[in-house]
Amino acid sequence: MIKLDTHIEALLVTYDTHDMVNHSGDVDLPSRVSVEQILAGLDELLFPGFRENSGLYKNNLRLITSEKVYGIARKLIRKIEKSLAFSAHLGVLSCEYYDCHASAENIVETFFQELPELRRVLSHDLKVAFNSDPSAKHMEEIILSYPGFQAIVIHRLAHFFWEAKVPLIPRMMSEVAHSRTGIYIHPGARIGESFFIDHGTGVVIGETTIIGKNVKIYQGVSLGALSAKKEDSNRKRHPTIEDDVTIYAGATILGGETVIGKGSIIGGNTWITKSVPANSIIQLE
Amino acid sequence: MIKLDTHIEALLVTYDTHDMVNHSGDVDLPSRVSVEQILAGLDELLFPGFRENSGLYKNNLRLITSEKVYGIARKLIRKIEKSLAFSAHLGVLSCEYYDCHASAENIVETFFQELPELRRVLSHDLKVAFNSDPSAKHMEEIILSYPGFQAIVIHRLAHFFWEAKVPLIPRMMSEVAHSRTGIYIHPGARIGESFFIDHGTGVVIGETTIIGKNVKIYQGVSLGALSAKKEDSNRKRHPTIEDDVTIYAGATILGGETVIGKGSIIGGNTWITKSVPANSIIQLE
Amino acid sequence: MIKLDTHIEALLVTYDTHDMVNHSGDVDLPSRVSVEQILAGLDELLFPGFRENSGLYKNNLRLITSEKVYGIARKLIRKIEKSLAFSAHLGVLSCEYYDCHASAENIVETFFQELPELRRVLSHDLKVAFNSDPSAKHMEEIILSYPGFQAIVIHRLAHFFWEAKVPLIPRMMSEVAHSRTGIYIHPGARIGESFFIDHGTGVVIGETTIIGKNVKIYQGVSLGALSAKKEDSNRKRHPTIEDDVTIYAGATILGGETVIGKGSIIGGNTWITKSVPANSIIQLE
Amino acid sequence: MIKLDTHIEALLVTYDTHDMVNHSGDVDLPSRVSVEQILAGLDELLFPGFRENSGLYKNNLRLITSEKVYGIARKLIRKIEKSLAFSAHLGVLSCEYYDCHASAENIVETFFQELPELRRVLSHDLKVAFNSDPSAKHMEEIILSYPGFQAIVIHRLAHFFWEAKVPLIPRMMSEVAHSRTGIYIHPGARIGESFFIDHGTGVVIGETTIIGKNVKIYQGVSLGALSAKKEDSNRKRHPTIEDDVTIYAGATILGGETVIGKGSIIGGNTWITKSVPANSIIQLE
Amino acid sequence: MIKLDTHIEALLVTYDTHDMVNHSGDVDLPSRVSVEQILAGLDELLFPGFRENSGLYKNNLRLITSEKVYGIARKLIRKIEKSLAFSAHLGVLSCEYYDCHASAENIVETFFQELPELRRVLSHDLKVAFNSDPSAKHMEEIILSYPGFQAIVIHRLAHFFWEAKVPLIPRMMSEVAHSRTGIYIHPGARIGESFFIDHGTGVVIGETTIIGKNVKIYQGVSLGALSAKKEDSNRKRHPTIEDDVTIYAGATILGGETVIGKGSIIGGNTWITKSVPANSIIQLE
Amino acid sequence: MIKLDTHIEALLVTYDTHDMVNHSGDVDLPSRVSVEQILAGLDELLFPGFRENSGLYKNNLRLITSEKVYGIARKLIRKIEKSLAFSAHLGVLSCEYYDCHASAENIVETFFQELPELRRVLSHDLKVAFNSDPSAKHMEEIILSYPGFQAIVIHRLAHFFWEAKVPLIPRMMSEVAHSRTGIYIHPGARIGESFFIDHGTGVVIGETTIIGKNVKIYQGVSLGALSAKKEDSNRKRHPTIEDDVTIYAGATILGGETVIGKGSIIGGNTWITKSVPANSIIQLE
Repeated sequence: MIKLDTHIEALLVTYDTHDMVNHSGDVDLPSRVSVEQILAGLDELLFPGFRENSGLYKNNLRLITSEKVYGIARKLIRKIEKSLAFSAHLGVLSCEYYDCHASAENIVETFFQELPELRRVLSHDLKVAFNSDPSAKHMEEIILSYPGFQAIVIHRLAHFFWEAKVPLIPRMMSEVAHSRTGIYIHPGARIGESFFIDHGTGVVIGETTIIGKNVKIYQGVSLGALSAKKEDSNRKRHPTIEDDVTIYAGATILGGETVIGKGSIIGGNTWITKSVPANSIIQLE
Repeated sequence: MIKLDTHIEALLVTYDTHDMVNHSGDVDLPSRVSVEQILAGLDELLFPGFRENSGLYKNNLRLITSEKVYGIARKLIRKIEKSLAFSAHLGVLSCEYYDCHASAENIVETFFQELPELRRVLSHDLKVAFNSDPSAKHMEEIILSYPGFQAIVIHRLAHFFWEAKVPLIPRMMSEVAHSRTGIYIHPGARIGESFFIDHGTGVVIGETTIIGKNVKIYQGVSLGALSAKKEDSNRKRHPTIEDDVTIYAGATILGGETVIGKGSIIGGNTWITKSVPANSIIQLE
Repeated sequence: MIKLDTHIEALLVTYDTHDMVNHSGDVDLPSRVSVEQILAGLDELLFPGFRENSGLYKNNLRLITSEKVYGIARKLIRKIEKSLAFSAHLGVLSCEYYDCHASAENIVETFFQELPELRRVLSHDLKVAFNSDPSAKHMEEIILSYPGFQAIVIHRLAHFFWEAKVPLIPRMMSEVAHSRTGIYIHPGARIGESFFIDHGTGVVIGETTIIGKNVKIYQGVSLGALSAKKEDSNRKRHPTIEDDVTIYAGATILGGETVIGKGSIIGGNTWITKSVPANSIIQLE
Repeated sequence: MIKLDTHIEALLVTYDTHDMVNHSGDVDLPSRVSVEQILAGLDELLFPGFRENSGLYKNNLRLITSEKVYGIARKLIRKIEKSLAFSAHLGVLSCEYYDCHASAENIVETFFQELPELRRVLSHDLKVAFNSDPSAKHMEEIILSYPGFQAIVIHRLAHFFWEAKVPLIPRMMSEVAHSRTGIYIHPGARIGESFFIDHGTGVVIGETTIIGKNVKIYQGVSLGALSAKKEDSNRKRHPTIEDDVTIYAGATILGGETVIGKGSIIGGNTWITKSVPANSIIQLE
Repeated sequence: MIKLDTHIEALLVTYDTHDMVNHSGDVDLPSRVSVEQILAGLDELLFPGFRENSGLYKNNLRLITSEKVYGIARKLIRKIEKSLAFSAHLGVLSCEYYDCHASAENIVETFFQELPELRRVLSHDLKVAFNSDPSAKHMEEIILSYPGFQAIVIHRLAHFFWEAKVPLIPRMMSEVAHSRTGIYIHPGARIGESFFIDHGTGVVIGETTIIGKNVKIYQGVSLGALSAKKEDSNRKRHPTIEDDVTIYAGATILGGETVIGKGSIIGGNTWITKSVPANSIIQLE
Repeated sequence: MIKLDTHIEALLVTYDTHDMVNHSGDVDLPSRVSVEQILAGLDELLFPGFRENSGLYKNNLRLITSEKVYGIARKLIRKIEKSLAFSAHLGVLSCEYYDCHASAENIVETFFQELPELRRVLSHDLKVAFNSDPSAKHMEEIILSYPGFQAIVIHRLAHFFWEAKVPLIPRMMSEVAHSRTGIYIHPGARIGESFFIDHGTGVVIGETTIIGKNVKIYQGVSLGALSAKKEDSNRKRHPTIEDDVTIYAGATILGGETVIGKGSIIGGNTWITKSVPANSIIQLE
C-alpha cells in the first residue's frame, strides 16, 4: 500500500529551502494562463469576429466591444499591478514613490488609446503579407492561418508593454507566440511598419534588434548576439536591419554593431557578423 | 480613475475604416477553434480509443462511431458552407450557379466515403515510421507521440479538402499541424504513400511540391520556391521528389523544376537548386 | 440529402481489418490529454503558485500540496498500470511475474520520494539559465517564460519514468515538451546538472546521448545519429558531450562514438561527426 | 497545524464496516448526474430547438438528430446495463439467464421505437394545458416554462423504463422532476392521455395510482396510501381516478380501493378516503 | 445488434406532423438556459460580490460593473428581440410597424435606467425580511440564503419585462424562481414595497393579484382564481391584498373580487373566497 | 443606438448609498456556489462512488479519499475563516481574542474527526427509510433518489457547523437542501437518530425544534412558531417531538412549549398548538 505522507513533508521542506514558490496571497505573479487569456481577448478586439465561434453581429458590435474592453482592462490592470508590485518588492522600482494600481491604470488607459493606431499598423503588415506570398489567396486567410502574422500581432502588443516598463508580462506574451509559431521575437526588439515573416519556424529576433520598414524574413533566420555575457545585458547586442531588406531562410546575422544596409538581399543559410552596405546581395557560394 | 468610453468609440471607428472585421451574422468565416474541434473529431474517428480519456468499448463502438460521424459531418458541412459562401461573395465562385449548402453536403459525403481508404494509406505511413526509427518500440507509440506522423495525418485530411476546392479550411488545418509540430506542409502538396517525417521541427513543404512513394524526410528540411513573386502563384514553384528518396536534416531543395531522382540520398544541410539524377548521393563536403 | 449509414459501416469494417484501434475497455493506453494533465499537476508541485490562476496562500500550502500529491499519484498509478499491462500484453514484460498495479504503486512512491532532489537539481538549472542569458531580468522570469527551462523540467520528469522502464508515457511527455517548445529531448538521454538550453526551437537530443555538467546549447542544435537502421536500436547511436561544453546555434553533432571533450566550444552551424579533444574551439570558416 | 491523516484512516475503516460505498469498478450504479444528462438529451429529442442555446437549423435537423439519438442510446444502454447487473447481483434477476448488455440494447431499441408515439401523447398533454390555463398565451410558453408539463414529460419517460423493469433509473428520473418542480409522480403510476398539472408544487402521486384520460390536478394534491406498511409493497395502495376528473389544490385522496368516479370535481383542501360515484362534486364546507 | 436508423426516420417524420419544433435558424425562442444566465448576471449587478466565487475589489468595481452591464444588455436585447419577433410572427404584434431590434434596445435601456430604483425597493424588502424573521442574524444572511427574498428579486425583474410587454421571457424568469424556491409568482402580479415571503414552499400568487405595501406571506399561501376558464383570461381573476396584511401558512384566498382589507391578519390553513374588511382577524376554528 | 454609460454611473452611486455590496477583497462572504461545491464534496466522502460519474476503484479508494479530504478541508477552512471574520467585523465575536484561521482549522479538524460517527448515524437513517417505505426496493435506491434522505444528510452536516458557531454557512447549506428537495430544516434543529422524512415537499422544521429518535414525518408537515416577533429570537419557539412519533402529511404543530408525547400518531392536515400526551392518536374529524 502506497504511503505518501512522509514524502509530502519532505517536499514541503524544499518549499522553504529551495525557493521557487510564488505565494499568490503575498506579492504574486501573473500565470501563463492569465496572460494567454488576455492575449485571446486582445486578439478578438483587434480582429472582431475572426476568433470566436459565434455571436458577433453588426447590431451588437458596440455592446460586445464595450464588454470586452472593460473585461480586458480589468484583467490587464490586475496583472500589471502585480508585476509592478513584484518589481518594487525586488527594489527594481519603488511602490513608495507611486501607487502600483494607479500606475497600472495609466498604462492600460494609454494602451487602449493606442489600439486604433495599432490596428492601422497591423493593416499594413497584413497587406505586405498578402503581397509577399504567392500562395495567399485572400486577406482573410492571413488573419485566420498565418503564424508569421500572428507572431507580429503579439509582438506589437508585447512591445507596447515593454516600452511602458511593465515587468515579466511582455516576455510571457512573446513566449506564447513562440510556443504557437516557433517564432521568437524579444519584446524589446524595435520593428518598423510593413513587416513580414513567412511561416517562420526557428526565427529568432533578439532584444536590442532594430528593424526598419518593409523588411521580409523567412524561416530559420536568426538576428542574434555574438556573445552571451551577463555583463553585456545593457548594451546593444543584436543587429540593425534597415528599410526594404529581405533575409532568406536560415540566414544568421549576429552582433550589435552589424548593420544590414537599406535594400539589401541576404541569401539563405548565410552567416553574417559584419555590416554590409546598402543594396548588397549576399549569397552562399 | 480610468476612463475608456472615448477609446472604445475610437476603436469602433477603426472597425469601419480599417476593415479586418468578420461579421458572423453576415458572410462569416470558420474560426480556428472550430477547425481544431473538427480535426480532433476526425482524429478520434481515424484512431478510435487513442485520443479520448475514456469510454470506448467493443460493444459501443458502432454507436459511438455513428454519433461522431453525424456530429463531425454537421460541423464540417456548416464550416465548408461558410467558406464557399465567402468565396462566392468575393466572386471567386458563385453561389448563384449552385447551392452552397448542397455543395458542402456533397463534399462531406465524399469525404466520409474516402475515410476507409485514408485509414489504409495511414496504416502504411505508420509502418514505415516504425521501420525507419530505431527508437520506436511499438506501433502504438507512433500514434500516441510522433509529431511527424501527426503532421502527415492532418496533411492527408487537409489535402482532401484542398482537392475539393474548399477555401480557407485546408490551410487552417495545416496551420494547426504547424503550430503543434513545427512541420509545415501546404495542403496543396501531393504526397505519395509510405511517407515518413522524423520529429521534424522546421520542415517546410511548399504548395506545388510533388513527393513520390517511400520518401523519408528529417527535421529542418525545406522544399521551397526560388522566388516569392505574386505573379508566380499559378506556376509550379516547388520541387519534385521521386520515389524512395531520403533527405537528411537541414537540407534545402528549391525550385519548381528541380527534380530529385528516384532512390537518391540528400545529405544534411545541403543546398540544392538544380535537379539530380536517380540514385544520386549528395553530401556536404 | 446526405446519407452516411453505409459509409459508417465501411469505416467500422476498417476497424477490424486495419487495426489502429485502442479499446479502452480491454488493455488500453493513456491518452495524450491524460499525460498533459499529469504534467500540469507535476509542474504545479514543482513550482507552487506559478501555474495556477489563484488560490495559493502560505496557510493553505500544506493542504493544497497534500491534495495535489494524492490526486497526481492516483492518475499516475492508473496510467502507468495501463502502460505496464499493455507491455505485458505484447510479451515485453509479464504481468504473471508481478502485479501491474503494485508495480505502478512502487514506481510512483519512488517518484515522490525523489521530488525534493528533483527540485534541488532544477534550482541549479534555473541559476545557470539566469547567469547565461543577458536578457534575463529575474529568476522568476525564467520559470514563467523560458521554453528551454520548461523542456528541461519535462525531460527530468520523463527521464525518471524512462529509467523506471515505464512504457510509452516518457515519450508522450517528451512530445508534450516538443510541441510546446520546439525542443526535442528523447527521454532516454542522460543529462548532467546545470544544463541550459536557450529559447531552443529545433533542438534535437537523441535517445543515447550523454551530456555532462554545465553544458549550454542554443537553438537548432542537433545531437543525432549517423544512421537510422532499425537493427541499431540497442546500440549507442548519439554523441557524448562532456562537462562545461557550449554548443552554438545550428550546430550538428552526429554519431554514438563522437565525444565532445570537456570545456570545448562548438560554433554555430558547424557539422561534426568525429570526436574533438577537450577545450577545442570549432568554428565555421 | 491541522492534521488529517488519522481521520482519513478512520473514515476508510467505516467504508468497510458501514457499507454505503459503490465501487464503480465492480458492479456499480448510475449516478444522478448521468441520469440528468440522459434526461436533458431526451428532452432535446422531444422538443428540438427549445432547450439548446443555439445551433439547430432546418438543414441540419437530420444530422443533429442522428447524432443525438446515437449518443443518448449509448449512454442509456450503459446505465441500464449497470442497473440490470446490480439487480442480478442482488439475486432479483439473473444475468446467467441472459446477457445484461443485450437486454439493455433491446430495451433501448424499443424505447426509440416508441418515441414518435410519445411525442403524439405529449402533444395532447400540451393542448390540454393550453386550454386549461387562462394565463397561457402560446403553446410554446408551456414547453418553455410550465413545470407541470415538464413533470409529465419526465413521468412518461420514467414510466416506460419502469414498465421495462429497469431498476433504479425510473425513480432517479422521477426524483429529477421532483427536485425541479416540486411534483412527485412515482414512475409506476399509470396516467392516461391529456393529463394536466398546474404549477403543481407539493403534488404527490403514488406508485399504484391509476389515472384516466382528461384529468386535471392542481398544486398540493396528494394521491396517497392509507398506510405505509412494508408488507403492503405489492398491493394496490393508491387511488384510481377515472376519466374527466378535476382535483383542486390541496385535496388529499388516499387508499388503494378509493375510486373517484368519472367526471367528478374534487374541491380544494378536501380529504377523501372512500370512493365517490361518477359526476360527484365534493367541496369543503 | 441495435439498429436505430429506421427509428430516427420515424422520429423525423413526427417533427413535421406534430410540431413542437423550434428552428433556431428561423424565428426561434430563448432557451431556459439563456434566461438563467441573464438572471445570474442581473443578480450579480444587484448584489455585487455576493454571487461570484471571487474577483471583486473596490478598485475594480467600476470596470467589472461596466463589463457586466454591456454583456447582460447584449444578451437581453438578443433574447427580447427573438421573443418580439416570435410574437410578431404569430400576429400578436407586428414587426412591420417597428423594428424588433430597436424595440428591444429601448426596453433594455429603460431597464438599466430603472436598476437603481429597483435596488432601492429591494433594500426595503431586505429590511422587512430582517425585521420579520426572529431567526435572521444579519442582513447578509438574507441575501445569501433566503428563498423568499430570492423569489421577490426575480419577480421584480420579471414584472418589469411583463409591463414592457415582452413575450415569454417574464414567465420563464418566474419559473426559474419557482424551480429554485417552490414559490410561484406570476410576473403580472403587482406587488407593493416592503414585501416579505417566509421560506415559502408552495406559495402561489396569480397573474392579476394586487398586493399593497408591508404585506407578509408564509409558506403554502395561495392567492388564486375561483375558476380556470380560458375565456376569463382577460379578467381580474385573483385577489387584492391591501397594505399591512399578514397571511399565515397554508391560507387560500381565491377570486378576482376578493379584497383583504388593510391591516388584516389571515390565519393559517384558512379558506377565503369573499372580501374581508380592514383589520379583520380570520382564523381556523 | 443604446447608451448605457450614464446608467452605469447611476448604478455605481447606489453601490455607495444602498449598501448590499460584498467586497471580496475586504471582509467578504462565502458565495452560494462555494457552499454547493463543499456539500458536493462532502456527499462524495459520505457515499463514495454514488455521486461521481466514474473513476472509483477498490485500489484507489485510499488515494482518492485523501485527495478529497485535503481539498474539502482547504475550501471549508477558507470559507469558515471568512464567515468568522465577517462576524468579528460586526462585533458579534472578536478576532482580536483569537486567530480566525486557527479557529477555522480547529473546527474543520473536529469535523473530520466526527465524519465516521456521522456515517454511522446516517446508516440508521438509511435503514429506517428503507423499512418505512413500501415502494423502496433496495437500500441503494434511497441513497440515489430519496429527497428526504438527502435533506437529512445535509441537515446533519449543517447542524455540526451550527453547533460550532460558524456564522452564515449552516443556513446556506440548509437552503441548498431546501431548494433541491422543498424540505426546510433550520440548521439549529436538534434531531435524534433514525429520522425519516418521506418525499417531503413543504416540510418546515424551525430553529428551536427538538426531535427524538425514530420519528417519521410526511410531506407538508410544519413544525413552526406561534409568533414571529423579533424579540423572541432567543426563546424556544418551535415544538418538541418525542421518540417514536409519526406525523402524517400536512399536519401543522406550532409553539415552543408544545410537546408531542412519545409514540403519538398525528394525522394528516391536523392543526396542533398544544401539547398532547404520550401515545395519543390525533386525527381530522
